[in-house]
This record gives sequence, C-alpha cells and structure tokens, in this order.
Amino acid sequence: MKLVANNSPMAFDLRTTADRLFNELARASADPDGIGVSRESYGAGEQNAIEIVRRKAESVGLEAVFDAAANLVVTLRGRDADRPFVAIGSHLDSVPQGGNFDGAAGVVAGLLVLMRMKEERVVPPRTVKLIAMRGEESAWYGKTCVGSYALFGGLTEQDLMLIHRSGRGTLGEAMQARGADLGRIAHGETLLDPASVAAYLELHIEQGPVMVARGFPTAIVTGIRGNIRHREIRCIGEAAHSGAVPRWLRRDAVFAVAELIAHLDEHWESLQQRGLDLVVTVGIISTNPAEHAMSRVPGEVSFSFEVRSQSSDTLEAFYHLMRTECRSIGDRRKVEFRFDRRLDTKPARMDDAWVERLLRLSKRLGLPAETLPSGAGHDAAIFANEGVPSAMIFIRNEHGSHNPLEAMALDDFLKGTELLYQAVADAT
Amino acid sequence: MKLVANNSPMAFDLRTTADRLFNELARASADPDGIGVSRESYGAGEQNAIEIVRRKAESVGLEAVFDAAANLVVTLRGRDADRPFVAIGSHLDSVPQGGNFDGAAGVVAGLLVLMRMKEERVVPPRTVKLIAMRGEESAWYGKTCVGSYALFGGLTEQDLMLIHRSGRGTLGEAMQARGADLGRIAHGETLLDPASVAAYLELHIEQGPVMVARGFPTAIVTGIRGNIRHREIRCIGEAAHSGAVPRWLRRDAVFAVAELIAHLDEHWESLQQRGLDLVVTVGIISTNPAEHAMSRVPGEVSFSFEVRSQSSDTLEAFYHLMRTECRSIGDRRKVEFRFDRRLDTKPARMDDAWVERLLRLSKRLGLPAETLPSGAGHDAAIFANEGVPSAMIFIRNEHGSHNPLEAMALDDFLKGTELLYQAVADAT
Repeated sequence: MKLVANNSPMAFDLRTTADRLFNELARASADPDGIGVSRESYGAGEQNAIEIVRRKAESVGLEAVFDAAANLVVTLRGRDADRPFVAIGSHLDSVPQGGNFDGAAGVVAGLLVLMRMKEERVVPPRTVKLIAMRGEESAWYGKTCVGSYALFGGLTEQDLMLIHRSGRGTLGEAMQARGADLGRIAHGETLLDPASVAAYLELHIEQGPVMVARGFPTAIVTGIRGNIRHREIRCIGEAAHSGAVPRWLRRDAVFAVAELIAHLDEHWESLQQRGLDLVVTVGIISTNPAEHAMSRVPGEVSFSFEVRSQSSDTLEAFYHLMRTECRSIGDRRKVEFRFDRRLDTKPARMDDAWVERLLRLSKRLGLPAETLPSGAGHDAAIFANEGVPSAMIFIRNEHGSHNPLEAMALDDFLKGTELLYQAVADAT
Repeated sequence: MKLVANNSPMAFDLRTTADRLFNELARASADPDGIGVSRESYGAGEQNAIEIVRRKAESVGLEAVFDAAANLVVTLRGRDADRPFVAIGSHLDSVPQGGNFDGAAGVVAGLLVLMRMKEERVVPPRTVKLIAMRGEESAWYGKTCVGSYALFGGLTEQDLMLIHRSGRGTLGEAMQARGADLGRIAHGETLLDPASVAAYLELHIEQGPVMVARGFPTAIVTGIRGNIRHREIRCIGEAAHSGAVPRWLRRDAVFAVAELIAHLDEHWESLQQRGLDLVVTVGIISTNPAEHAMSRVPGEVSFSFEVRSQSSDTLEAFYHLMRTECRSIGDRRKVEFRFDRRLDTKPARMDDAWVERLLRLSKRLGLPAETLPSGAGHDAAIFANEGVPSAMIFIRNEHGSHNPLEAMALDDFLKGTELLYQAVADAT
C-alpha cells in the first residue's frame, strides 16, 4: 500500500490498513501457548507491537520517538507548535492470554487519524500526538497504568520494586531495559507537564456488555469509576451443633452475611433507581474450611466488598450504608464484623465540554449520542486526575475483555475512528 | 463402699458412687494428647469404660453379659420374667477428644437405678435391662448408632466395610474383635426382637444450650429430629468484570444465594412462629477459589443445606419451599441451582404415653414438667423407629457436647437419675 495522493479521496484505505495492522499485531504477540495474545508490560509482545506502530508511522513520514518513560510518541505538527497539544492515547500491552483489542484499538485508531491527516495534508490547529503507552495492565507487576503514572511522577520506589508475576525481576528493571529514565522516574519527576496537554482522547473497547445489549456501536464515556474495597471482612458468630441449638440461641455468621448482602442489594437497587451510578460486588465469600461442616452452625465467614461509582459522594454514601448495616445486623444477630484496611481508588470525571463535543459530533455522524460510565480503569483517568481535559470513546465489543474472545467489529471501530478524527481535526 | 442394708434408706450413696464412676471413666479413657476423653467405637477407651460398668454391676450381684452385637447388658429380673422388659440404654463411646458425659451419663444413670433397686430389694413389675451400647458416634467410622442398628439388623455389608478415620481397618473387623457375631449382623438378622422390649428409656445430656438458658435441670424429649440435607448445592451464574458490567446484565451467584438464604431465614422465622419445629443451617458456603476475585462478579457459589425437624411433614414442606425459592430466584436472576443427592434421616417420635408419664413424675419430684426436641441423633431414635415405645430424659449441660468442656452438674444428673428410677419402678 502506497501513501500517495490519487483520484480517490484517500490514497490508503482505512479499513484495509486497520485490518492489516490488527492482524500484524496479533501475529507478532501471539501467546506461546496459542491462547490469544500476550503483550507483557515492558516485555517482548508489547515491544513487538510498539515496533509495528513505530514502523508504520515512520513509513508515512510521521515523527516517532520514545519519551522518557519509554512510551512511543508519534507527532503531527499543528499550525501553532507552541500551544498545548492534543494527545491521543491508549496502551499496547495486554493481559496474559488476552484479546487483540484492549488497548491496541485506541493506538491503531490514533495512528489512522494521524496517517489520514498526513495523507490529506490537514494541518490541525494544534499539534496532535499519539502516545502509545506501556504497562497499563496490572496483571504483570500488580500496578496499573504504569506508562501514564510515570509521565506525571506518580510511581513510588515501592512501585518500581514490584516483582514480576513469575517471581523474577522488578518493574524498574523491565522499564529500564526498554530505555525508560529510571532515575527521573524514581525521583517522581514530572516527565510531561499536564499544562502542555490541551486534551487527552482515548478510544477503547467497552469491557462490559452494555453496548452490545443496547445496540450502540460507539458511546461517549462520562467518567471512570473509582472504588472502595475491602479484601476481607470477617463476620464472627459462634459455631454450634446444627441440630441442638435453636434459632433464638444461634449466632449464625452465614445468615448474618446473607442478610447483609440482601440489604446491600436492595440499597443498590433503590439508589440506582434514583439515578446514582454504582455497582456492588462480593466476589469472594467463604466459611472457614478448617472448621465448617454441613451440620455445624457456621461461626465465621469471610468475604470481599467492592463498590464502584463515578461519584466520590456515592462511594462514601454506600460505604457508610454498608458499615451501618454491619452494625445493625451485628447487634441484632450477635455477630461481629471485622474489617481489614479500606482501599480507595479515586473516580475520574471526563471533561464536560469534551463529552458534549463528542456527543454533538456523534449525532452529526449518525452515531448514537449516548453516554456510559467506564467501570474499568484507563490511562485517561490518570490524565484526567492530573487536570488534563480528558475524554473517551467506547467501541462495542462482545465477550468482555481480558480474554481471547474479545470481539470488536471493524465497522464499529471505523465509526469510532471517524469520530476521533473529527474531534481532533476540530480541536481549536 | 459396702452395699449392705443399714439404718439409712440406702447403704450406698448415689452421689458418691456416681462421682467416682465418672472419675474412673474419665481416667480410663483419657485422650493420649491430654484433651478430654477418647472412647473409640469398639476401641480401647470404649472397652475400658464398658469393663468399669461391668465390674461395678457384678460387684453388687447384677448379671452382666455381652449381647450378640457386643453391647453390655446388665439385668435385674422383674416379677414376671416372660413379659417384655424395660430397657435403659445409652452409649459408652465418645467422639475423639470429647467430653465425659455424652453417652456415659445415661449408662451410669441406668447402672445406679439397677444398683438401687437391687440394694432396696425392689422387684420391679418387669425385668429391667441396662444396655450399654457401643459405636454411637459417627466420628470413628462415619456411621452413627452402630450398636443399636446392629440389634435390629440395620447394618448393611457396606456399613461393615466402612473404614476407620485413620484409614486403617473396617468397622466389621473392629466389631468382631470385640466379640460381635459378624455373620448374623452381616445377614441383617434381628438380634433383639422389638416386641420383647416394653420400653426404651435413655437419659442423656442436652447437646445444645436451651436448658441452661431456661434454667431446666431436666427436661423430657418429645422427639428426635430428622433431617434433609444436601452436601453441595451449586449456584451457577456468570463471571464478569465487576466494574464494567452493570446491575441489569449481571448473573451474580453470590447475590442470588444471599437472597435465597435471606428468604429461607424469613420462612423459618414465620413457620416457627406458627409453632412448627425446625432449624435450618447453611454450614458451608464458598465461591470457587480457582477463579474468584475481589473485582470479579462471582459466577459460581457452592453451599450446603440442612433442615431438621421432628416432623416429616415440616421437613418436606420446608424442602419444597427451598426448591421453589431456588427456581424463582434462578428465573429472576438468570442463575441455575444444581443439586447433589438429597440425603434423608427420618425423625423419631418419642412415645406419647411415656412422655406424659415422665412429665407427671417430674412434677411430683419438683422438677420442671418441660419438653424439648432433640436436635442430635440418639440410640433412642433407632428403638423408636423399630416400634419400641421410647422416651428420653435430658440433663442440663453447658458448652454443648463433642468437646472436652461438656459440663453437667452432679446435682442435675442425680435429679434425672431419680426421675429415671421412678419411671422404671413404676413401669407396669
């Protein structure tokens, strides 16, 4: 495929180019066991993917360099190079045995936007940079969004000492091997001044089933949910003979936790009916295998707790509700709830003006002007919480993500890419 | 202590005799690790206990022999030896590292009753036999009430092949080593004709906390609860990203099971308020450790189910309710409940006339005329289900049973023994 102007409005065909790029990425980072793709953060699969993008960019005359965090930056100069630039970003790593689109879709979309501008000799008002981030997936070192945190001095020395899931090697070593400036990163230096970024735009597949269920090829993200979690809450009652102890003398931990969860479910339902954004999950529950038995009143249950919301107020309100229920159930059923350390992740709001702009553009392109919260975390949350006006375009995707069955239709992807192009071309 | 008549109404002091017998039993079957007593079914601790009872009986001139199931039978002849006899029974084995009174209290009480009749030269209307049963605790071979099942041809060849908890030796071998007639037992022969037993009376410690809570030193058992159980019910939903999947698209197995348990709890409460006898237990619950995570909508939970009641109708009704709830919750939440084999144990009714008689006698002795169901199983259930009119006297006991902390006050025991004596002396 040659990138020279001809009679057609575009010398290169976006669909063919996208299709070939996705195929090339999949081949270059196929999991050794043949299950999906494995693009290890700062590892071989991620590196192969980054090189494909770099070569493609350079082949059409785009400038492609690595920043101090070893992310790839592809630049198309705008009319006024001194003004803050527009960033298009996403990541090129994947979970082990993951799918081909989580992360890569946004990078390929950004590359296609820059290629098309280059091809069409469009000079946008502001410089546009594609940042292909590394290390977004926590599956390899336990830390998420490493590439974007690094840009804003957000990694601690403890983070850099995180051990690879294999038990061998640290995150810092892996970053350094890819050329990241570990000295500056370890000192928490700001590698990218947030004030130099006019906007951060990220296209990403949806990781849930909402858009498939609602028939939206694209949607605009309103915010990225934060969460409050406990890895383990223990409910302590009293073990007893299941036949010999009557109802009124029981301190049954399982019945207490079942009541708690049933109440949380009711609160969740009614808060959601009032329009609040939240999801509640008890992903882990277990009686104590050392002592539980079919004919024993359970004296102990442990369970995890997670509430996610786009709103810090909703998070706090629901958390407070949970603690209140625990106290009330504890008193009534004579059980005790013991909590481990509360874990917090802040929600990130997408920029209202950008959300409005993307909705307007969607309507103009005949796409649904629909919004969606993002339940999963993204590099966009890091940029947004640094004060960079940020926005995300979600693309419909079947079977969720973090598995080889991810299925994004090329048609949907091209619609989202068109939206991204219009947004960037429009960014004054 | 000499057992000759003198001026006092009794030559031997019941309290001292009981105290010494209990101490002797505890010493002779102390657990090797120093934790409580261990009277293994057909093992050394049980044998030591049986020998203590046999020697004591023979020392006062009572006839003591082993029956074809190797249970010890101590006989005091009544006025008409051809009429069906009154049996006093309980067991002499214990769980590993158990308490001194579960089982032994009933055997010691029976022995004291016979000793006192012998001493007082009382010739009861019917012959009275103490049957000191073996093998009541399922902890050793997994089968309960072996000594009484054996009497009525109730052991299968599979039962006799049950392996000891250590993994070495079968129940049949252990029984044979104690002199049981394994040939007859294996053929399911009736070793004791139920028609030859006029009544079966058993004194036993309460294994729950009701009598302590209500301040009853003794109480009369109305029935022995049966049960319906499932070792494992699996609730199958769909695992998903806890952030990216909204409420309406979730198939959350934990929320489904929590709702089920909460509903069962409400049904239990309302049925109990209507006067029905039942207890409900979910002793085991667990998400799948191979795939559960704090931030994953749980796709699978497994749990156990047990309902106990004195009434077969109540058992069936509650079981039906549970299955109906599973269907309704399954439909609504799009989860599936999968059931393993349903396990049934029949309830046993105590004999109404005997319960009335024991309540009348209690009142006469200044004891509470109170009834209680037995949640735990007992040899009395086997006799009752063979058509023998059966009754039980419960003795107040702290800290439950099957642990070294069992605590029965000698005062309470002597009150119960007096009640048993009166009942037997009275049995025309």
